[in-house]
Amino acid sequence: MAIGVDIGGTKTVVGLVAPDGSVLNSHVVPTPSQDSEALFAVVAEAVAQVAGSVTGADGGAVIGIGIGVAGLVDAPGRTVVFAPHLAWRGEPVAARFEAMTGLPVEVENDVAATAWAEYVFGAGRGVDPLLVLTVGTGIGGGIVIGGQLIRGATGASGEVGHVPFVPDGRPCACGANGCWEQYASGTALTRAARELVASGDPASRALSQACEGDAEQLDGAMVTELALAGDPASIAVIARIGALLGEGLAGTVAILDPQRVVVGGGAAQAGDLLLQPAREALAARLVGAAFRPVPPIVAAECGEQAAMIGAAELARQRFGAAQT
Amino acid sequence: MAIGVDIGGTKTVVGLVAPDGSVLNSHVVPTPSQDSEALFAVVAEAVAQVAGSVTGADGGAVIGIGIGVAGLVDAPGRTVVFAPHLAWRGEPVAARFEAMTGLPVEVENDVAATAWAEYVFGAGRGVDPLLVLTVGTGIGGGIVIGGQLIRGATGASGEVGHVPFVPDGRPCACGANGCWEQYASGTALTRAARELVASGDPASRALSQACEGDAEQLDGAMVTELALAGDPASIAVIARIGALLGEGLAGTVAILDPQRVVVGGGAAQAGDLLLQPAREALAARLVGAAFRPVPPIVAAECGEQAAMIGAAELARQRFGAAQT
Repeated sequence: MAIGVDIGGTKTVVGLVAPDGSVLNSHVVPTPSQDSEALFAVVAEAVAQVAGSVTGADGGAVIGIGIGVAGLVDAPGRTVVFAPHLAWRGEPVAARFEAMTGLPVEVENDVAATAWAEYVFGAGRGVDPLLVLTVGTGIGGGIVIGGQLIRGATGASGEVGHVPFVPDGRPCACGANGCWEQYASGTALTRAARELVASGDPASRALSQACEGDAEQLDGAMVTELALAGDPASIAVIARIGALLGEGLAGTVAILDPQRVVVGGGAAQAGDLLLQPAREALAARLVGAAFRPVPPIVAAECGEQAAMIGAAELARQRFGAAQT
Repeated sequence: MAIGVDIGGTKTVVGLVAPDGSVLNSHVVPTPSQDSEALFAVVAEAVAQVAGSVTGADGGAVIGIGIGVAGLVDAPGRTVVFAPHLAWRGEPVAARFEAMTGLPVEVENDVAATAWAEYVFGAGRGVDPLLVLTVGTGIGGGIVIGGQLIRGATGASGEVGHVPFVPDGRPCACGANGCWEQYASGTALTRAARELVASGDPASRALSQACEGDAEQLDGAMVTELALAGDPASIAVIARIGALLGEGLAGTVAILDPQRVVVGGGAAQAGDLLLQPAREALAARLVGAAFRPVPPIVAAECGEQAAMIGAAELARQRFGAAQT
């Protein structure tokens, strides 16, 4: 078995993951996001608790730790180069945790770890090439080709959300303008719903009631809930974002030619309300769509713990062979 | 040794390629582009001539044939699914040539074959991941990751030219609007120069003289020649296209994170006049450019015969092991 860790901007999940992907024991702790040393200490303590639950019964059964981090991780999986929501900058995270826990450690970008979970256990089982998107605050991408996670020259591959989509378009947190994720993410969904409410359009009545007239209180989950309950305006907003998701996806699919696209993240809660317009836009926009199969777009299956599960599985595969 | 074939819309090149990438003997024949059977016959005859030049001296030294085609080739390298400038539609090209020549045959997209030549012999030697662009009529892409040419699920990977770049932008031959290649290819370069001449801008005097006042006679080679001779308007036009090349490249680089980008094709004749603005635009637009090395953009080295050389080398590697 391996331990998986998913370090998010607000909370961190640590769990013991079996070779079949099931989570046997997990802890959620708040992330001390702006204090590097406190973050090491908190994660190490949670790891020790989870590891202790095994070693009590079956000493030495944990063969390694896989850590998913929202940020840029170097290609060998040792150093967190930059993580926008954490204090780590060029931090040798794997070496530090190895010293603290005595276990071998692999660090991965959290979307890459999510992609690996979907590839091994989820909606992309055995699919090759596989493209996994996480659509939430932004759009992240994870790529599997030839049975391998694609990390790129510097560990920075898969940044599909920052593909230029609209020249001189909306400013993005990355510093550039017009990135795809400014138009097709959960953030874009919330923005579109807020604009509709603020416009006073009578069609937005249900949305307006949900936020008691204060558009800034709307979030993606509220829009999704209304849409799933049948509100036409919410359905239309999600459909518009889905179409922009599919249109931008035509670029990444043209480059990678994946066999399937798996979509997870918060926005994927809307299911086919988001994915069906995305499928139609992809088929309409993809080069050569008349002469090739257009890859299916399906919902992710591994859920919120995907990054933790995938990170653990990566560690199990890397360190398992060395121990047996 | 292997035989390489590059089937273009107007001419076909067939050559004998040594393991070091040198071309020992090559023939150029016109391509009967709209007659499928004539195309098989013409290529088979040229192959027989080239093969005969070897078998006379050293029987059996040719171990296979690699064929590069501008079009969609299936992932196993057997069938030309669609080639816009040829009559082949779902044509089992490898099997047909095997029957005609008695040699094993591999078919590849011509840009993929070009990328392989640059990876083995050219400006991308040992670079992994490697992205190769051919910038001419459109923009083609070839990708090497983990020492393997990336073919995608259907053989359609690398179509970087058709990444959406401008919403509802210029119509593209692929049927969609706003594809990157409509803004940053040799075709875009020619269009920009023609518009400048047609505008009557006094700065366009040298361009106007070169085409004797008929803007429609301008082509990319003329603009490049004037720019290399120092004409400021031609230099500015190429720089503008180069900047759009770099800006769009920021998308493909964000996805693939290549170690280096090699640029070939007709437009690359302009050298640094095109590539330096592309480098600057890529560095300005690439996500995380402050935290990671921005991949260098360098000129291709294998020249016009790159697709033929790469196709031959792919065949040599695939079929060589079986024979020895």
